[in-house]
Amino acid sequence: MTRVLVPRVNGLCYGGDYNPEQWPEEVWAEDAKLMREAGVNLATVGVFAWSALEPAPGRYEFGWLDRVLDLLHGAGVAVDLATATASPPPWFSHRYPESLPVDADGRRLTYGSRQAFCPSSPAYRQAALALAGALADRYHDHPALAMWHVHNEYGCHNPRCYCDVSAAAFRDWLRDRYRDLATLNEAWGTAFWSQRYTGWEQVQPPRTTTTTPNPTHLLDFQRFCSDALLALFKAERDLLHRRSPGVPVTTNLMATGNFAVLDYWRWAPEMTGKDRLVSMDHYIVPGDPVAPPAAQVAYGADRTRSLAGGPWLLMEHSTSALSWRPYNPAKPPGQLIRDSLSHVARGSEGALFFQWRASRYGGEKWHSAMVPHAGTDSKIWREVVTLGGHLQRLAEVRGATVRAQVAILFDHESAWASDGPSQPSAEMSAVPEIRRWHAALWRMGVTADFAHPAHDLSRYHLVLVPSLYLIDDAAAANLHRYAAAGGTLVIGPYSGIADERDHVRLGGYPGAFRDLLGVYVDEFFPLPPGGTVSLDSGATGRVWTEHARAEAGTTVLASYADGPVANCPAITRRSVGAGTAYYLGTRLADADLAALLASAGAQPALPGAPPGLEAVRRAHDDGRSYLFLLNHAGADAVVPASGVDLLTGATWPDRVTVPAGGVVVLRE
Amino acid sequence: MTRVLVPRVNGLCYGGDYNPEQWPEEVWAEDAKLMREAGVNLATVGVFAWSALEPAPGRYEFGWLDRVLDLLHGAGVAVDLATATASPPPWFSHRYPESLPVDADGRRLTYGSRQAFCPSSPAYRQAALALAGALADRYHDHPALAMWHVHNEYGCHNPRCYCDVSAAAFRDWLRDRYRDLATLNEAWGTAFWSQRYTGWEQVQPPRTTTTTPNPTHLLDFQRFCSDALLALFKAERDLLHRRSPGVPVTTNLMATGNFAVLDYWRWAPEMTGKDRLVSMDHYIVPGDPVAPPAAQVAYGADRTRSLAGGPWLLMEHSTSALSWRPYNPAKPPGQLIRDSLSHVARGSEGALFFQWRASRYGGEKWHSAMVPHAGTDSKIWREVVTLGGHLQRLAEVRGATVRAQVAILFDHESAWASDGPSQPSAEMSAVPEIRRWHAALWRMGVTADFAHPAHDLSRYHLVLVPSLYLIDDAAAANLHRYAAAGGTLVIGPYSGIADERDHVRLGGYPGAFRDLLGVYVDEFFPLPPGGTVSLDSGATGRVWTEHARAEAGTTVLASYADGPVANCPAITRRSVGAGTAYYLGTRLADADLAALLASAGAQPALPGAPPGLEAVRRAHDDGRSYLFLLNHAGADAVVPASGVDLLTGATWPDRVTVPAGGVVVLRE
Amino acid sequence: MTRVLVPRVNGLCYGGDYNPEQWPEEVWAEDAKLMREAGVNLATVGVFAWSALEPAPGRYEFGWLDRVLDLLHGAGVAVDLATATASPPPWFSHRYPESLPVDADGRRLTYGSRQAFCPSSPAYRQAALALAGALADRYHDHPALAMWHVHNEYGCHNPRCYCDVSAAAFRDWLRDRYRDLATLNEAWGTAFWSQRYTGWEQVQPPRTTTTTPNPTHLLDFQRFCSDALLALFKAERDLLHRRSPGVPVTTNLMATGNFAVLDYWRWAPEMTGKDRLVSMDHYIVPGDPVAPPAAQVAYGADRTRSLAGGPWLLMEHSTSALSWRPYNPAKPPGQLIRDSLSHVARGSEGALFFQWRASRYGGEKWHSAMVPHAGTDSKIWREVVTLGGHLQRLAEVRGATVRAQVAILFDHESAWASDGPSQPSAEMSAVPEIRRWHAALWRMGVTADFAHPAHDLSRYHLVLVPSLYLIDDAAAANLHRYAAAGGTLVIGPYSGIADERDHVRLGGYPGAFRDLLGVYVDEFFPLPPGGTVSLDSGATGRVWTEHARAEAGTTVLASYADGPVANCPAITRRSVGAGTAYYLGTRLADADLAALLASAGAQPALPGAPPGLEAVRRAHDDGRSYLFLLNHAGADAVVPASGVDLLTGATWPDRVTVPAGGVVVLRE
Repeated sequence: MTRVLVPRVNGLCYGGDYNPEQWPEEVWAEDAKLMREAGVNLATVGVFAWSALEPAPGRYEFGWLDRVLDLLHGAGVAVDLATATASPPPWFSHRYPESLPVDADGRRLTYGSRQAFCPSSPAYRQAALALAGALADRYHDHPALAMWHVHNEYGCHNPRCYCDVSAAAFRDWLRDRYRDLATLNEAWGTAFWSQRYTGWEQVQPPRTTTTTPNPTHLLDFQRFCSDALLALFKAERDLLHRRSPGVPVTTNLMATGNFAVLDYWRWAPEMTGKDRLVSMDHYIVPGDPVAPPAAQVAYGADRTRSLAGGPWLLMEHSTSALSWRPYNPAKPPGQLIRDSLSHVARGSEGALFFQWRASRYGGEKWHSAMVPHAGTDSKIWREVVTLGGHLQRLAEVRGATVRAQVAILFDHESAWASDGPSQPSAEMSAVPEIRRWHAALWRMGVTADFAHPAHDLSRYHLVLVPSLYLIDDAAAANLHRYAAAGGTLVIGPYSGIADERDHVRLGGYPGAFRDLLGVYVDEFFPLPPGGTVSLDSGATGRVWTEHARAEAGTTVLASYADGPVANCPAITRRSVGAGTAYYLGTRLADADLAALLASAGAQPALPGAPPGLEAVRRAHDDGRSYLFLLNHAGADAVVPASGVDLLTGATWPDRVTVPAGGVVVLRE
Repeated sequence: MTRVLVPRVNGLCYGGDYNPEQWPEEVWAEDAKLMREAGVNLATVGVFAWSALEPAPGRYEFGWLDRVLDLLHGAGVAVDLATATASPPPWFSHRYPESLPVDADGRRLTYGSRQAFCPSSPAYRQAALALAGALADRYHDHPALAMWHVHNEYGCHNPRCYCDVSAAAFRDWLRDRYRDLATLNEAWGTAFWSQRYTGWEQVQPPRTTTTTPNPTHLLDFQRFCSDALLALFKAERDLLHRRSPGVPVTTNLMATGNFAVLDYWRWAPEMTGKDRLVSMDHYIVPGDPVAPPAAQVAYGADRTRSLAGGPWLLMEHSTSALSWRPYNPAKPPGQLIRDSLSHVARGSEGALFFQWRASRYGGEKWHSAMVPHAGTDSKIWREVVTLGGHLQRLAEVRGATVRAQVAILFDHESAWASDGPSQPSAEMSAVPEIRRWHAALWRMGVTADFAHPAHDLSRYHLVLVPSLYLIDDAAAANLHRYAAAGGTLVIGPYSGIADERDHVRLGGYPGAFRDLLGVYVDEFFPLPPGGTVSLDSGATGRVWTEHARAEAGTTVLASYADGPVANCPAITRRSVGAGTAYYLGTRLADADLAALLASAGAQPALPGAPPGLEAVRRAHDDGRSYLFLLNHAGADAVVPASGVDLLTGATWPDRVTVPAGGVVVLRE
Repeated sequence: MTRVLVPRVNGLCYGGDYNPEQWPEEVWAEDAKLMREAGVNLATVGVFAWSALEPAPGRYEFGWLDRVLDLLHGAGVAVDLATATASPPPWFSHRYPESLPVDADGRRLTYGSRQAFCPSSPAYRQAALALAGALADRYHDHPALAMWHVHNEYGCHNPRCYCDVSAAAFRDWLRDRYRDLATLNEAWGTAFWSQRYTGWEQVQPPRTTTTTPNPTHLLDFQRFCSDALLALFKAERDLLHRRSPGVPVTTNLMATGNFAVLDYWRWAPEMTGKDRLVSMDHYIVPGDPVAPPAAQVAYGADRTRSLAGGPWLLMEHSTSALSWRPYNPAKPPGQLIRDSLSHVARGSEGALFFQWRASRYGGEKWHSAMVPHAGTDSKIWREVVTLGGHLQRLAEVRGATVRAQVAILFDHESAWASDGPSQPSAEMSAVPEIRRWHAALWRMGVTADFAHPAHDLSRYHLVLVPSLYLIDDAAAANLHRYAAAGGTLVIGPYSGIADERDHVRLGGYPGAFRDLLGVYVDEFFPLPPGGTVSLDSGATGRVWTEHARAEAGTTVLASYADGPVANCPAITRRSVGAGTAYYLGTRLADADLAALLASAGAQPALPGAPPGLEAVRRAHDDGRSYLFLLNHAGADAVVPASGVDLLTGATWPDRVTVPAGGVVVLRE
């Protein structure tokens, strides 16, 4: 049976964050009218309404929210009701100054912006749960209530707090992990630089110190910080399950750019299953050096789908410009619709925006919205209305899933560790490289999932490991088993190097993968900034090279033709049981990487599609299948496909013309 | 009747900051001799002498200053006597540590440099007024005393203090402005991000917070900070008026580069009228991307004249290199004289320098002076002597004024707001753009005033609005009236957008100017960093474009030929009553901007002057007129003008030859 | 008699830092075996072992160290035993939080890294001396003990502390220097900006202030900070002399890149003489803009030899990559050996590395070592073994010295002062320029010493003064005497400018050298960033020019052909008694500088050597002489030299072939 994420909404979800507390009530009526005009069926209400809901400690003002929910319900708009705990009001912060976050320099930040609280603060937790509880009690049976929206973007601005309260919580977390100081000392390697702890009270957050801090200390602090925020989510979620049973609960994760501050693999299990759903915010990063906007959208959607293990919900994206970058470009005509439908193609059960109506004041007044400052006489509003119609016509897609044959491994802990202090090269950051491999697949038309190294990978033909510096023994064995059972692995450089404590695996790199790959590296030779190296295959390497040898049974596919390790192997292949393991010792240029991935078996969803034509398939378990064709190019594209276009009703017998900038969704 | 700024000085003022406390008394006698040699008639004494004047709390040592004033008086040098309050001595700061300024991070700065005090500190205010009073009592009838110099460069290093004392003063200021918290909450838009204040004690300076702060909070804090320093000035001024009646009072403002931290439109009325004068410091910014050195001089002088509403006094500039930039170039031969005379041409009643004698120690020992380290055997000294002679020959210019036909609108509050957080493009800063338009006029030979949007503009043929993001309704109506009465307006992009609370004006941009200009914009399309766009007129746009349409009755002068809004109008013109309003939707390249300004009616003072020849006219009310011709180029210039050169006595019947690097001042 | 630095070690020293506390004891046995295999005869033990040696206050655990020393002794490896005081354990820092260093912003740094202590902390000093004393008492007669290694790299991460304890110590130091506040006020020029001190309690470290701080305040604080650390060294050294008599004592200085935080000319006399030796750490800076790696090695060695006044010991360098740079390249094959032998050629009595065995955890796990992560199957290990053999064959070199005929003046105080605030040009930093002149000599094959301006320079034919902004009268007279007695001086720009209080010398630049050089400068004309100027000799100048004239008797060798001071003299020469003084008023390009130095008399050790062939001679007092030939180029080099190659035993009668990347050491 197809799982329905938001039962109270029919078809796909459409809408956005709605902040009526910013507007006089006469505007609300117009909002309801325009929502109906645009086909909006879901509004997220109250995300930053704490100060409006609880203007003084324990004194709640729900009247205005009652009116909002009634109004929306009357307009046929369901409500994703926020617990409003993301941004405590000034009275709270002023009353509990110790709840404000402290940075690594010991500087206590102040309120006036948002998310100004220490994740470990008991005062904050108590106040947040009280508010969430009051909301649950009042609205759990309101007919507009479709789902609960816990908090907002956990970790967006306060992922790490270094205050004394956080220090105590960190020590508790460490006691759970290590039990005794001897184990902690061994894990952190405190014999180095004479930093052995002899009493728990000596252990602090990694506050600013004289020079290189302890890498494992940092890594554990990042693990703790992710868990501290997760604990807050779980507390709100459990309260809502108790006091508003049967209503789905989510919190909006973040998939923008290189964001990887929280270990979402630990969050996902807490957000899936009965009465829960995974939702995500995604924003395009202007001028991103790794991926064009459409590939960024695909990355965000593919990551979220992988976390959800199926359909998910796009909680926020933008109709046009952001406001929090130095330069905030607007979306050209058509991109609003393409971006939304790309998310839907990749598993989202709809498209929601931040926000419904553009603010006229405050820190995000220049963020685009569904109703811009100019009002309905605007490019944005016209596209918003068009998109609303499209989504209604796509209702039958709800519940269908995307089945990828390629997985890309993504491990937060490894990424944190390889971004740690005193690395061989500052350019070996993992997340941008993972995104670069994903963008290579996207350009090839290949839809990919993301996976954790410990996951069951058996359903994938091909598993890519762009950068996996840190891996524990069990996960390493999992990858070996995957290949031995017939899978194909492609492993990039600086992988398999350290264990889960960030201890280097001795005896030759790439450590955990040395035997799997049949490659032995005795020394890294990072390239200077901007440096390149040529391979005898004609390919170009960047950033990194290695003094390596291929062991017996390993095939050298390409060697370095120049550079500091000329003649050493650069790309190798080895048979592993029924499968194959490729190794890359350098960072191949985009085109060369694509060629290698193709030769390793990456297959596009629609062979023969021209550049800029994105093709993604989403299908029901019963076989009903939909081919989304999004043309990001400036010229019409004719592609070999057939079916009925759900958006227009047109039937295409064998070839489909996708207009420049347009979208076709074929029921195949 | 011509207003005389410094009655005790005959002719134009000449001299500089004189800090005898840095030198043994035997040097003083040489100083007096050299001042006489150079024609110095005014010395600013005591600017940083607090620790010499009051070495312990309440214990004054005036003996040395008596001797200095007597010596100068004997040498025919009048004294601009400083109140010496700019830099409290160590004993003060050590005794009142709470008087030291605190930054947004909560870091309390220390003494050892200068201006290390919190503008709202009661201890500082009391001590400063006590010192100023003691000086007034002692010297109010000294024959050398020509004027009072309050403090020094208010706001140069401590414009904003975030301490608790400042917080209380800020709250008082806000109570005056808003009366109640409800009004403040509405003005600041605290419904956004749940930051509604429910008690005055919750309101703080905009200290460092988690992410984007509240823009109106920031804007009001900047207004408050300017007013807090202004209150200090007024307190010293009023004391001097009481205890040293009849002696002119000033403080030296700053017109260097992009400096706009204080709202000088609020200061100017406090510095004009009986026994008051406007004075200014101006320093050239090496490598400034907007304007060459001579245009920077013109900008500083034009701004100060506009504040003064007539003649003013150049209190500080440099004979050659500065010392507070990473790279401090020296002035080539002749520039010292041209810079000084450009200030005089534009209304200064003389030329003073920082400083008389170059320090041999301390933080400014590498700042040039009238007597350099090398002494009188130097390029600088020789030019200083020459300039002294020139100024004597220009005595009759005193009291003459400059009459510009073009005004450029400059509004500090708007500039602060458009430099606020989370803007569409970080490149839309107002002050550099205002300076760029001024430099375009300067290259064209057009002399311009600066004006506030609420000023009576009726005396100008042309009013330029390079960047005016924020404007209140009254000022917007003022501009409309100006055009309707026959004036010509040229308005640049991102103007008219917000009201005085930084609330966006809804219904389509450019908000307050939408009807005036007959242009409707529904969305901004900022260009990427370094991006350009072509107009069908052949012009080039930068930084910014807009999705716009021209309403009926509006003439499109140029449209975008490419870029994200191809075919949209870029430059428009509309008749408004008896006048005309031009709109630019992009930032035109320098040459294209100049062409537009010419077509809008900007007229040079001396048509036909070659590039690099600066021509400015200064005239008495009785019709006596002087044409200053400054040749910044490397070749002699022959220009169509006639009269007697005051500097040489030569008579030029119809054409004047201005030597390369030289200056001619014609009595026309 | 030849002085033997480490009597207990025969021949040259070979080994590195050995940190057995990071490894289980079963690894120790392998260490001993491998050390023997590599020819290691000296291991530095315990540098960061404080927390292992004293796990709780006053409780010492020496058992493990006993076993380590016994094991090493059994393997024929002598021990350089550290006092282990460089990095206090967490229990110490937690117990004495006031011992943690505070930065200029008032931020107290925390532990967890290394060297987290305030140099003026009494608690630290007491604990450090207690530990050093306990070690001395236990091991002073251990047969493995060859020398004592005090602390580690003084000043590496905590050179300056701004806490209140440091403030008090700074005041004590100032009282010693100035006796009374009047003298301090005069020296610091506190009349400037009204900062006269009237009580000692007002004097603080130069904490962050509002704008430019007082330059002499800064300078004295740097002097104090160097002395504060030196006092710590002397305290440990004296304790060791008392409680472990007859055992040599050292501490490892730093000669990497531009490091000049401590005034080593004040340290050197405390590290030479009976039972003392100078040792140094040297690391190559990747991508250094001034000097290639081999020239950096030569610079480090030449500086250390000059401090030692003869043979010295290379305490640390790297076998390959560092880990504390953004990009850490590995050494190509052969460089490990060349770098070590270049140090030996230039006076080191051996070659030690950080470290023996690469750490598998902690902040330096990516720093290369003698036993890499990969183990003995590695390029590094093979070169380590080869180098061990080489050093054994070079035993007879021990005690020989290098005699240079050129000295380069290097003065820390001057370098600090010219890097002070508010300078004419930020590009006039002294140390990089000194290193650039050294690199020019290195490329020419000229071996140079470094000297202090007050040293007896009579043994040098040529003395270079690349940058000496600050000089006292006595040192200036010393240079004059040197030239007058027949020496040749070459003085670069911005030299002789200020006295020891950083007071500008008046009457024309270059101040102290005006008469010596016969050059008079009235004004500096620094060039804009990246700017160049042409000389009429065809040479190119950078960064700096001056408005100068040559006095009678001074020969102008080149004048500016363009730029802001066209036609002024750029290079001059003047006879001074029996000698000659050259002056450069600009920073000559590398090749032009080399040409000038050659014409001034710089002579290579081996005329005719090809580029990349480094030739250095080291000789015994009895005439036995060794010519080290290091080929840094990619092709074999044939050079005119003869003798027996100590490394191979081959005899070369008249011409020697030095293989590409290889080394020949001729007994001449």
